[in-house]
Amino acid sequence: MDLRLISRLLGIVAWLIGLTMAFSVPWVWPALGPAVEFESDGLLGLGISIAICVAVGALLRFWGRDAHGSLYRKEAMAVVGLSWFLATVLGALPFLLSGACRGRDAEGQPIPMTIADALFESQSGFSTTGATVLTAIEDAELVPRSLLFWRSSTHFLGGMGIIVLFVAILGQGSAGKALMRAEMPGPSAENSYSRMQQAAWSFAGLYFALNAILTALLWFEGMTVFDALCHAFGAMATGGFSTYDTSLGHFEKAGYAHAVAIDYTIVVFMILAGSNFAVLYGVFVHGPKSMFRDVEWRVYMATIVGVTAFVVGYGMFHRDFAHPGHADRWEELRDSTRFGLFQVVSIMTTTGFGTHDFNNWNSFGRGVLFLLMFVGGCAGSTGGGLKVIRHVLFLKALWLEIERAFHPSVVRPLRLGGKPVEDSELGHNVIVYFALILVIFVFSWLFIVAVEPDRTWIEGGHPRENKLIDAATSVAATLNNIGPGLGVVGATENYARFTSATKLLFTLLMMIGRLEIFVIVVLFVPGFWRSH
Amino acid sequence: MDLRLISRLLGIVAWLIGLTMAFSVPWVWPALGPAVEFESDGLLGLGISIAICVAVGALLRFWGRDAHGSLYRKEAMAVVGLSWFLATVLGALPFLLSGACRGRDAEGQPIPMTIADALFESQSGFSTTGATVLTAIEDAELVPRSLLFWRSSTHFLGGMGIIVLFVAILGQGSAGKALMRAEMPGPSAENSYSRMQQAAWSFAGLYFALNAILTALLWFEGMTVFDALCHAFGAMATGGFSTYDTSLGHFEKAGYAHAVAIDYTIVVFMILAGSNFAVLYGVFVHGPKSMFRDVEWRVYMATIVGVTAFVVGYGMFHRDFAHPGHADRWEELRDSTRFGLFQVVSIMTTTGFGTHDFNNWNSFGRGVLFLLMFVGGCAGSTGGGLKVIRHVLFLKALWLEIERAFHPSVVRPLRLGGKPVEDSELGHNVIVYFALILVIFVFSWLFIVAVEPDRTWIEGGHPRENKLIDAATSVAATLNNIGPGLGVVGATENYARFTSATKLLFTLLMMIGRLEIFVIVVLFVPGFWRSH
Repeated sequence: MDLRLISRLLGIVAWLIGLTMAFSVPWVWPALGPAVEFESDGLLGLGISIAICVAVGALLRFWGRDAHGSLYRKEAMAVVGLSWFLATVLGALPFLLSGACRGRDAEGQPIPMTIADALFESQSGFSTTGATVLTAIEDAELVPRSLLFWRSSTHFLGGMGIIVLFVAILGQGSAGKALMRAEMPGPSAENSYSRMQQAAWSFAGLYFALNAILTALLWFEGMTVFDALCHAFGAMATGGFSTYDTSLGHFEKAGYAHAVAIDYTIVVFMILAGSNFAVLYGVFVHGPKSMFRDVEWRVYMATIVGVTAFVVGYGMFHRDFAHPGHADRWEELRDSTRFGLFQVVSIMTTTGFGTHDFNNWNSFGRGVLFLLMFVGGCAGSTGGGLKVIRHVLFLKALWLEIERAFHPSVVRPLRLGGKPVEDSELGHNVIVYFALILVIFVFSWLFIVAVEPDRTWIEGGHPRENKLIDAATSVAATLNNIGPGLGVVGATENYARFTSATKLLFTLLMMIGRLEIFVIVVLFVPGFWRSH
Repeated sequence: MDLRLISRLLGIVAWLIGLTMAFSVPWVWPALGPAVEFESDGLLGLGISIAICVAVGALLRFWGRDAHGSLYRKEAMAVVGLSWFLATVLGALPFLLSGACRGRDAEGQPIPMTIADALFESQSGFSTTGATVLTAIEDAELVPRSLLFWRSSTHFLGGMGIIVLFVAILGQGSAGKALMRAEMPGPSAENSYSRMQQAAWSFAGLYFALNAILTALLWFEGMTVFDALCHAFGAMATGGFSTYDTSLGHFEKAGYAHAVAIDYTIVVFMILAGSNFAVLYGVFVHGPKSMFRDVEWRVYMATIVGVTAFVVGYGMFHRDFAHPGHADRWEELRDSTRFGLFQVVSIMTTTGFGTHDFNNWNSFGRGVLFLLMFVGGCAGSTGGGLKVIRHVLFLKALWLEIERAFHPSVVRPLRLGGKPVEDSELGHNVIVYFALILVIFVFSWLFIVAVEPDRTWIEGGHPRENKLIDAATSVAATLNNIGPGLGVVGATENYARFTSATKLLFTLLMMIGRLEIFVIVVLFVPGFWRSH
């Protein structure tokens, strides 16, 4: 294990984070809009954090200055895994150093963020989860606007993966390939791109462009530039941080003229963000029809449409979307479709924006959203979850196993889109992946049920009998990088009340989910650090 | 597929069931004790059912009289799977033909059992689940005592597996081996028995002997012969049918002098019933120490002891077992240990007897019981669940996969008790088994949440918000052959209120769980029925 080479590469990550922080600095001046008065706390916090990033980066580069040699599989895994730990710690600094507060206590006194809070918030941003411990982000006295922008910037940076940018900037062919393979989610078809570096540039360009287009659209629809940027970052990274306590529902409540248009615009871009970027890029080369030739994208779209139909149907039957303002059933259907579609897309793409309190939906609606959390977006997208293609392969591989039970001698290959897949171990690997997720899910759930006191539920006005189901959804919502779950972590709630131990577990789960288990888990295996 | 050979073998199953029914007939006479008056309904129902069994058996044997040739893998699977369908239908007849009632409505009128009710109750008996739709079994006007005995007899028959008896009686070497392999639960070590037929006789003898010993002990502890027999059948089969609505808690409430002794006696025999019968048999050959040489049995005992300690500890902290009659904390600890140990053993061995309403325990206690449902007994026991050995192999196989992630070239074999396992596919097969259970669990859960109306919860006085967790535990409790779950299917509840569609799903789940998935699932694959 060449630790000096790893150190040199981690130095670049530290500098990249410092550079991104610099873009949050201008927002301390009220002239730009959101800040009410000059945010001296925000400037101080960001300034010191940038200085620390630069210093840490320099130290890491200095220690690794003599490194030479290539990056092997183990080193590549270590760089990716450790860079996320480093990013989480550095990204947490501005929250701590600016004295941001997570809310107010019963007497109205501000509650400062703890170290666990700041790490949680930072990891939630980089992993594009969007879960928060901040209960009053609209209060500029508690959270400087510049900090809010930094919070959304972590989505932007995490979205495409620090490492994809890294590859593009670094320009090291073999290292880039090894890193990219560890970083890009899912069993992707990126092998068709002969040159990884060019692919990284293409994806980064596409990602920048979509962010810019969405920002412009939201601005045209009446948002301020600040809100438009932050919500574009949240949508394109499938993150979900908003600048309002009521998430995207704010624009309806505040009476924005284009609130409906905003909702549907975000829906379209969440769907794009959950699509494989290689498939999106193919639209430029082969035209829009090429998307439908991709098996995964077809299943992805069919799932969104099918589940939305069921959610709207059950929601209408149980009157979940009924509102006194509805003149007739048609108006109810119109709103059901709007809110139902939004929530299905938001959860399935693992974004986690909210426009409707789905915690009050009927059991079927809530149950389906819980399962959707595990579906996630397409491989090679910014979405989290297990990815659509894994579910397709999982069910196909299990079907072959059932056939094998009565025909042990007949070995049939796994097929995808009519063609046998090249990798004969793919079916096995996908089943193993599901099994690992299951084990992590079960043990995390048991940890929370055992460690988290009933007080967390009682103080929030939630029945403590719901601990089992709420804890399950909180694990699902962090492990799959979604954000909101049910009950105590529901659409109108947050993660503030949890104890620090549980917050740190959530932080780890978000990282494990974002980096597809192995890259994080191997860091804890002693044998990994031993030399070859 | 040789259907005539299958038919001939199924004929024996029908006769065997008719023969077992005959043992319930004597209980219609009040002279024997339990019956209050001569049970003409019971006699009629049992009589006609026996006649039908004999006739069906004769028809099946007649149609298959010309069959010759050997039993291949597919035929063996078909015989096992179909014999459980046949047993379920025939076993349901006495309930329907004697006019047994599942309870009384609000006006006190008896509610007759539906076909779905009878199939559910029959399958619950044969699969040794012990879930019931009968809400007032102590009322002899609703359920004849002779029927109650038939209900417990299905446990006895199902416990060791119809097929094990079948093998012993049939005495066909190769067929017996093929059948036994399909029937005996878990990746058992039964290969060490060179002669399957002798093993079947040994296990059957041990099973009979343990039933007889337990019956005698319970009789000495104050039960009637009828109660002692029924509860021995329930315990040794890890079934859980009782003759009282309050299950085994009845003896404490009714003031039996030896109620504590009864509880601990049942605990010991449930532990034996959940042990591998080959290991139990080894005690006669190699002495009691030989049990501890078995890896699975060590993990099984360690789990029981460890989980009990946690359950008692959390239970004491949350005062779950506190009772006004307790003079001090020591008395509370004594009761906590008694009820906690009983419930842990009852759930883990998949028996499902109850002495304490664990639905009111703290969340950790309830959560652990839910997870224990999936652990189950040892391979080669009468217990259900996934079996302890599968969990051991599952975790070991996943650990090897994590090592493979950073050392792809190093292939290490799966080891058990220090030695590499012979079957190189065992790790893969165990992971596939877990994946199949997961898929069946998730889709069944979604089916119940989608199909079962909120009314089922509201009428039972349960919050409909608990539908998600209650439905999950009901699937776990039937798929793993336990019986009680949480909430609407909790320790003091039953399965009566569910709709027929859900009851039939539960019936199928009990069968799938009992026969380890494949034997039932392949029956629904069209390719299975095509000729080679």
